[in-house]
Amino acid sequence: LPADAAPAYLFVPALQPEGGRVTLADEPAHYLARVCRARVGDFASLTDGVGTVARAEVTALGSRVELVVRGVERRPRARRLDLWCGAPEGTRADWLVEKLAELGIAALQPIETSRATWDSFERRAARWRRLAEAALRQSRGAWALEIRAPLALEAALGAWDRMTRGVLADVLGKTGVAPRASGDCVGLVGPAEGLTGDERSRVLDAGFDPMRLSDNRLRSETAALAVACWWAGAVTDGATDGV
Amino acid sequence: LPADAAPAYLFVPALQPEGGRVTLADEPAHYLARVCRARVGDFASLTDGVGTVARAEVTALGSRVELVVRGVERRPRARRLDLWCGAPEGTRADWLVEKLAELGIAALQPIETSRATWDSFERRAARWRRLAEAALRQSRGAWALEIRAPLALEAALGAWDRMTRGVLADVLGKTGVAPRASGDCVGLVGPAEGLTGDERSRVLDAGFDPMRLSDNRLRSETAALAVACWWAGAVTDGATDGV
Repeated sequence: LPADAAPAYLFVPALQPEGGRVTLADEPAHYLARVCRARVGDFASLTDGVGTVARAEVTALGSRVELVVRGVERRPRARRLDLWCGAPEGTRADWLVEKLAELGIAALQPIETSRATWDSFERRAARWRRLAEAALRQSRGAWALEIRAPLALEAALGAWDRMTRGVLADVLGKTGVAPRASGDCVGLVGPAEGLTGDERSRVLDAGFDPMRLSDNRLRSETAALAVACWWAGAVTDGATDGV
Repeated sequence: LPADAAPAYLFVPALQPEGGRVTLADEPAHYLARVCRARVGDFASLTDGVGTVARAEVTALGSRVELVVRGVERRPRARRLDLWCGAPEGTRADWLVEKLAELGIAALQPIETSRATWDSFERRAARWRRLAEAALRQSRGAWALEIRAPLALEAALGAWDRMTRGVLADVLGKTGVAPRASGDCVGLVGPAEGLTGDERSRVLDAGFDPMRLSDNRLRSETAALAVACWWAGAVTDGATDGV
C-alpha cells in the first residue's frame, strides 16, 4: 500500500471471523490490486457495514483477490439518527445520500407526502446503495447507510416509537435546540414543496420538536443535511482512525 | 403570481430606493414574466445581495420588464461566517458553493495549500457566482455569498484579525464546540489531501480552535458544509419570510 496514503478500506458484506478467508468481489478486488497496488503480505481494513471492522492480510492477487482476517473489532453504534425525508427535486437525492452516508447517518427513510412522491425509487435506490457504499469506504465508517423503501407519512408516524426523540426541520421551529450525544433520534424533513399545514400538525401532535436550522429558507435536501450535521456534531468517543 | 407559491424573489444588483424604477436583466425578466407569469400590478421581492430587500410593483412586461420600488427594508447582518477552504476534489466545489449560499455564509475564501491548489479558478468562479445567485433567490436571503480569489494559507493567516473567532475542522479537535449567535467567525477546512502537519501547527498557533465535526472521516467539502451548518444552526432573529 502506498506509504503516504491511509491503508485501503473495503466494504465486504460477508466478512469472516479471525482466521477466515475473504474473496473480494470485482470492484474491491480491482481497487485493492490496481488502485492501491497492494502486494501479498500487505494489510487492509474491511468492514461489513454493520459494525465490524477487520484487519486482513492480502494472500492472493491473481484472478481471485483473497485476504485472511487477522483481527476483528466490533464497533457498537452509540446512537443513531434516522432521517425521514420528503422527496427533494430531481436528482438532488444523489448527493444527499452520499453526504448522509459520510456523516454516519443510520437510515434514509423516504417519506411520501401529499405534495410529493419518490418517483422511480427502485431504479434510483440501486445507484444510491452504490453511492452509500463508496461513502462508507471513503469515510472509514463501520455502519452503512440503510436506504429504506418509501413509506407514507401517516404509516411512518403510526409505527413510530414515541420514546425516540423526533425533530422536525421547520422554519417556524425553535432555535438553539441541542443535539444529544446519546440516545436515538429521528429527523423529519418535508419535501421540496413543503408539508401541508395538516401534515405539519400531525407531526407535531405525534411529538416531534420543530427546529429552525438557519435564518434562510433551505432546500429540502439542504435541510436534511443540516439535520445530519447537527446530529453528527455531538460526536461520541468512537474514533475511526488507526484501523 | 401563482396563488399557491411564494412571491417571486429576484436578485437585482442595482436596486433603487423607494419610488425608483428597476429594469430587469434578461434572466430575472424571463423568470418573472414566463416562470412566475406575473401581471402588471403584481408585487415581487428584490434583493441587492448586500442587505437590502425591496417590495416592488410590476409596471411593464413587454420587451423591458420594469418594476417600481414601493418599500425598502434593510437587513443588517447580525454576524458572519467566512469559510477558508482548501481545494476539494474535481467538481465538488459546485454544490458546496450552492449550499454555502443557501445557508447564508458570507464568503468562500479558497485557500492554496502545499498539497492542493484551486485549478482554473477564474473559469469556475463565473459558474459559482451564478450558482450562488440562484441559491440566494431560492433561499430568499438578503446577503449574497462572496466568492473571493484564492489566497495562500500563509497570506490568509498573516492578514487575519485574531480578534475574530477561528475554528479548524479537525479530526483530532474538540467535540461539542458551541456556535455563537453573535460575533463573526472564520472556519478553516483543509483540502481533500489534508493540511500538512506543519500547516496545521501554524493554524493552531494562529489561534484557531480545532473542532471535530463527526465520528467519521469527512470529505473536504462535507467538512466545509458541516462547519456551515454548525454555524447556521445558532440562528438569529432575522426572519426571512413574509417579504
